[in-house]
Amino acid sequence: MRAEIITIGDEILIGQIVDTNSAWMAQKLNLAGIQVKQISSVSDDRQHILEALHESESRADLILITGGLGPTKDDITKNTLAEYFNTGFRLDEDALENVKRIFSRYKAPLLETNIKQAEVLENCTTLLNKNGTAPGMWIEHEGKIYVSMPGVPYEMMYMMEEQVIPKIKGAFHLPVILHHTILTAGIGESSLAELIASVEDSLPAHIKLAYLPKLGTVRIRLSGNGQEEDLLNQEISTYAKRIVDLIAEFVMSENDTPIEKVILDYMESKNLTLSIAESCTGGYISHQLTQHPDSSKVFLGGAVTYSNSLKISILSVSEKTLINFGAVSEETVKEMSEGARSAFHSDYSIAVSGIAGPEGGSEEKPVGTIWIAVTGKSKTIAMKFNFGNKRIQNIERSGTTALTLLYKLIKEEQVY
Amino acid sequence: MRAEIITIGDEILIGQIVDTNSAWMAQKLNLAGIQVKQISSVSDDRQHILEALHESESRADLILITGGLGPTKDDITKNTLAEYFNTGFRLDEDALENVKRIFSRYKAPLLETNIKQAEVLENCTTLLNKNGTAPGMWIEHEGKIYVSMPGVPYEMMYMMEEQVIPKIKGAFHLPVILHHTILTAGIGESSLAELIASVEDSLPAHIKLAYLPKLGTVRIRLSGNGQEEDLLNQEISTYAKRIVDLIAEFVMSENDTPIEKVILDYMESKNLTLSIAESCTGGYISHQLTQHPDSSKVFLGGAVTYSNSLKISILSVSEKTLINFGAVSEETVKEMSEGARSAFHSDYSIAVSGIAGPEGGSEEKPVGTIWIAVTGKSKTIAMKFNFGNKRIQNIERSGTTALTLLYKLIKEEQVY
Repeated sequence: MRAEIITIGDEILIGQIVDTNSAWMAQKLNLAGIQVKQISSVSDDRQHILEALHESESRADLILITGGLGPTKDDITKNTLAEYFNTGFRLDEDALENVKRIFSRYKAPLLETNIKQAEVLENCTTLLNKNGTAPGMWIEHEGKIYVSMPGVPYEMMYMMEEQVIPKIKGAFHLPVILHHTILTAGIGESSLAELIASVEDSLPAHIKLAYLPKLGTVRIRLSGNGQEEDLLNQEISTYAKRIVDLIAEFVMSENDTPIEKVILDYMESKNLTLSIAESCTGGYISHQLTQHPDSSKVFLGGAVTYSNSLKISILSVSEKTLINFGAVSEETVKEMSEGARSAFHSDYSIAVSGIAGPEGGSEEKPVGTIWIAVTGKSKTIAMKFNFGNKRIQNIERSGTTALTLLYKLIKEEQVY
Repeated sequence: MRAEIITIGDEILIGQIVDTNSAWMAQKLNLAGIQVKQISSVSDDRQHILEALHESESRADLILITGGLGPTKDDITKNTLAEYFNTGFRLDEDALENVKRIFSRYKAPLLETNIKQAEVLENCTTLLNKNGTAPGMWIEHEGKIYVSMPGVPYEMMYMMEEQVIPKIKGAFHLPVILHHTILTAGIGESSLAELIASVEDSLPAHIKLAYLPKLGTVRIRLSGNGQEEDLLNQEISTYAKRIVDLIAEFVMSENDTPIEKVILDYMESKNLTLSIAESCTGGYISHQLTQHPDSSKVFLGGAVTYSNSLKISILSVSEKTLINFGAVSEETVKEMSEGARSAFHSDYSIAVSGIAGPEGGSEEKPVGTIWIAVTGKSKTIAMKFNFGNKRIQNIERSGTTALTLLYKLIKEEQVY
């Protein structure tokens, strides 16, 4: 059972909006056991839409189309579909009621173009749109199913969850598709691949393995399809366990969770608190953590100490250390971390000090030199890194690396 | 001149990642005068990639391919391209040097698969990848140009900006396309449109106007195309001036610069310094500022004070204020801002305290309630906002709004 997603709209092709609908739809379809074969974004152009529909038929049994159902002149999806299926329109009474209901709520006058919104293809089953005026359409044609939906995300999402996915499950006998993701840090993609080559080579055809690298972490994803959920789950778990055994020291989590969330959850479960002293990362690590609801249960706060005087006044770094070793040094970063832990009364702390670039490097300490320290109950660990000469990359990789070091130290100290 | 973007990778088709590359590339191509006709996301599957390449040829002269260039087994783009063009591989010495340089920096062992990364198609011009091991490839074949790039965003972006776009401009005779962007803050898209309707209605056909709203700012972009750069430039400037005259109080900048960079540049030119006390924004504002090189000339540092005790110890907020009015209040946010300015010895300061959600709201202070204060030489201003119940949106809109308030205060105080 294969699907294709066709998104229609010039705003995608000029890069004015990022198409987030497709990823959301793909996730939902996957969970239902449907493989998305292709996502095609095409322009608001009759000929182009017709071509996309035609091409999709050779690849997919289910074709999901979003966008181009609005009331303005550039919305041509409905007319183009009528041409494609060689069919006419009918006024859908329920859809018209819905349009009237929405216009009365906003106290707006009902125009001719708004009434036309309630027209649907003669050959379709109407999909009501509770969140907007454009109805969706479910069309069965020559053994394929076509679903046309609005492009507005929450209108499409509601329609998918409430109507489209249940109808698909009713219409097809679908296989089970399962994924298992292993989050790793502190090792590159190719070294990982070498360590787990024996498992990768032994995988059966219906289970696939993928590497998804991102700024110092690599997610390994096992994806399998089958007919029996329990059996498939067992199979994938067995391979996942074999992989985890081979790379245990690099495994952060066996969920598809970002690294900072893994740490927040773990620390919360152990009642541990964290503070952060950031120099070159400039608030990035704090921001990563505080994006997540409930981060305040673990993260007490932090300081962004760009200037030396703030390192002294807030983190109690000694002036002598700064003079003798400089701000980017093992000695300073350790004092920053210990100073944060003590000033902010947390169980653990992180400190980062480095030269993010593009200026400020020297022969001894080139751009990209980053010192990271983590302090726990028993000790402070500091390590030096060099992530190259791109500022943003330095900031992001420093963040991931600092969190990885923190997690290792917490795990180590939890043993006792 | 038409382009097609082909993104390769199962992770897109199962919805694990949102394809942000395509929108970014489409924007850059548009700026260069190239229309993107279609974006196709296809799986890591040989036959499927071949089909996508074949189909794209009928639509586009320039085919940009991202993804599938990594060292692992699921990366099959390079082999598939070799099959498509019926060509072999050659080891590119510069690419190999680059791989070696990267591995020596990380002190990682160089594996056979890593050396293979330096192999490129025989018929290509190599595009060096300074940020990763996989080189890009520029292939001219039967009147079309194919560019294969890594899918990792910052690797692709660097390659596009530094190499691909300049090469495209050299290879084709493209029309002159000029853009003029006006950054506004503190006013919505439709109100702006009303204020500048007279200019919008008077634009000639070859100059278009677009509104690009993003989290509390709206960029107005005039885009024109023509054959003579000087003439077009003059024309666009005239219209831009007429627009700016109509909405002067909302204009932050006439460059396509993010708001925080506008402020950093302005403050640097006036020798002014800044500090920030963040509660619910959790480091976001500091991170926005410190992304930019040389931000340290203006930004001294800040504190992320999630807990009340840190608000007291670091920012000298009085315990009485916190007890009487709570952490999310005009009184507390003013003391936070004044405390930051004084503790961090800066000319200006920002403080934010609010309930980002999704939990923690009350009837009196619902989720989304945000207090923002800015302190300058003459005074502290505090304002209350409510940006709804989405956590990330609350954080980002608070950041933009705080920076807008800061900029207004600085401008006001500079008058004297």
